[in-house]
Amino acid sequence: MQIVLIEGDGIGPEVTQAACRVVAAAGVKIDWVKAPAGIPAAEQFGEPLPEETLEMIRRYRVALKGPCTTPIGKGYRSINVRLRQGLELFASVRAVNTLPGINTPYEKVDLIVVRENTEGLYAGMEHEVVPGVVESVRLVTRAAAERIVQFAFELARHRGRRMVTFCHKADVMRLSDGLFLEVARTVAEDYPFIQFEEKPIDNVCLELAMDPSGFDVLVMENLFGDVISDLAAGLIGGPGPGGGLGLVPGANFGNRFAVFEAVHGSAPDIAGKGIANPIACIRSAALLLEHVGHRAAGERIEHAVVKTLQVGEGLTRDLGGTGTTATITEQIIKNLGA
Amino acid sequence: MQIVLIEGDGIGPEVTQAACRVVAAAGVKIDWVKAPAGIPAAEQFGEPLPEETLEMIRRYRVALKGPCTTPIGKGYRSINVRLRQGLELFASVRAVNTLPGINTPYEKVDLIVVRENTEGLYAGMEHEVVPGVVESVRLVTRAAAERIVQFAFELARHRGRRMVTFCHKADVMRLSDGLFLEVARTVAEDYPFIQFEEKPIDNVCLELAMDPSGFDVLVMENLFGDVISDLAAGLIGGPGPGGGLGLVPGANFGNRFAVFEAVHGSAPDIAGKGIANPIACIRSAALLLEHVGHRAAGERIEHAVVKTLQVGEGLTRDLGGTGTTATITEQIIKNLGA
Ligand SMILES: CC(C)[C@H](C(=O)O)[C@@H](O)C(=O)O
Ligand SMILES: CC(C)[C@H](C(=O)O)[C@@H](O)C(=O)O
Repeated sequence: MQIVLIEGDGIGPEVTQAACRVVAAAGVKIDWVKAPAGIPAAEQFGEPLPEETLEMIRRYRVALKGPCTTPIGKGYRSINVRLRQGLELFASVRAVNTLPGINTPYEKVDLIVVRENTEGLYAGMEHEVVPGVVESVRLVTRAAAERIVQFAFELARHRGRRMVTFCHKADVMRLSDGLFLEVARTVAEDYPFIQFEEKPIDNVCLELAMDPSGFDVLVMENLFGDVISDLAAGLIGGPGPGGGLGLVPGANFGNRFAVFEAVHGSAPDIAGKGIANPIACIRSAALLLEHVGHRAAGERIEHAVVKTLQVGEGLTRDLGGTGTTATITEQIIKNLGA
Repeated sequence: MQIVLIEGDGIGPEVTQAACRVVAAAGVKIDWVKAPAGIPAAEQFGEPLPEETLEMIRRYRVALKGPCTTPIGKGYRSINVRLRQGLELFASVRAVNTLPGINTPYEKVDLIVVRENTEGLYAGMEHEVVPGVVESVRLVTRAAAERIVQFAFELARHRGRRMVTFCHKADVMRLSDGLFLEVARTVAEDYPFIQFEEKPIDNVCLELAMDPSGFDVLVMENLFGDVISDLAAGLIGGPGPGGGLGLVPGANFGNRFAVFEAVHGSAPDIAGKGIANPIACIRSAALLLEHVGHRAAGERIEHAVVKTLQVGEGLTRDLGGTGTTATITEQIIKNLGA
């Protein structure tokens, strides 16, 4: 099986390599096809996300992606945004759950943030009306709203708790979020066996901060999703600099393609030192395996990660240990049998 | 001194009355001029925010406001939004700090959220392009950006920690948040003695969730501010249903007028039972006193609230006690001397 591998930059090569090792150790043979993105691509091709990388994902359908930096100040558009739009990866998914051994105030968190990935303020429509007056357009269409809400319900169907929370600000954006809310309610009717809630986005923030354990699947538009994804990751975060971002897996799905990625940054300060925490990337790879039909292997990897955190040996510094990327990866591999 | 009092609905009359009692006990004589808003106003005048209420605030300049419900489904625009826009209350301020006796995972939090109140997606410009396609406009102007960032720096000047964090999403909204960011940087140059940081809004969410103690004054556009205000309040929240919203004071400032308000809801389920927690409203009244020149009295009230939470007697149920609005108010009054 051929899968695209975007190593990215900074700690990207180290964490993706760790993920590939774990996948191999789990017994899945993948022929990783490397594709460039980030700083190396910008330097080599003058373009941080070369068209050929998009083409390769279109060809092989699925990719694993490490952190990629969009060089600033050169007018490049964000790699992540272009990936999502170029491949119509309309759904971004972030799975956030409490992990053992991580000292966090919140327990029993087990939620999934589903984010609409193609519209909202990310549609990129802005203009200067007169100097000093700028308008950005927040786009909501029935088609995209329907597609993402359906996606969330399908996800909820496969989880135990059967609840979907639609997050909006329809009292302020009566037309745009009014449309989104109406669509969400209509889709919800097709899933009478799944509990449906609708909540203003500010309430959701408040409730997440107070007690995130009550949520299951949350679905929302692009920018709300950007914010809630990181908030949720922060809540279950470890002590290290990136907190939860070093732990939570991410994935972007479209009708035809899927890109799995650690959503943390490329941490140039520790790049090449062999001390980066590869867990977010390894868990993303586990989701990838499930997506391509290797469900058992994906679950074994996830289980091994949990076990490794529980035992607490070989952990990297951001997790309070003294280990390296190599030691934690070896522990995870060891625990694949556990 | 005459000050407008908007009692609002639900628990509004109870909590505002408690605040008036504490203000009187602190030795400040205020002639409260009642003005209608919320459900009673909608019933009596067919309008939840009658023009005469706005007129009264324009006349007396300052108001204390309890929670007001905007009846839904009748096409009324939000009372809060109309108050802010009608009085050009361009800055919304939410003070969030760790309080004693409240069981929260985060310590040493002491931050202020400054929110631009008149623009962004709250400008109310939306249209349906074709059926199923809606655009909402996010407005950013240089004038409003400048005014709010200056406001934040002025606030930071009076606090000990001298730091301002500007929150944005300029990598996605290059024009609108690009303008806002450029303005923020320029204003920051006028305050070389105050540390200035700029951070993407998603990072801010992550950092707040991980450890909010590093922030001092945060400043941002309208919808970001809506979300971050509630998130911050949630982080220091008590065990009760509204969590931190029952504790944090709020204020809205313009060049000429100011409205101080508890930002929690009107909790119709417990209205009239005498068990509502009045602390958010009492602390808002304390800020009001400082605003109208009674700094010492305001600080004494704030101090008395802290003392009351510390001692833990007479607390309402949402704070884990068995007391009532009356008992907690009496404790606060007793502690005015402490
Ligand atoms: C890099 C940035 C444009 C991106 C986003 O806002 O979507 C990032 O925050 C993310 O969540 O993947
Ligand atoms: C009621 C609603 C329109 C309002 C807002 O979004 O501003 C509220 O959430 C607030 O923060 O005061």
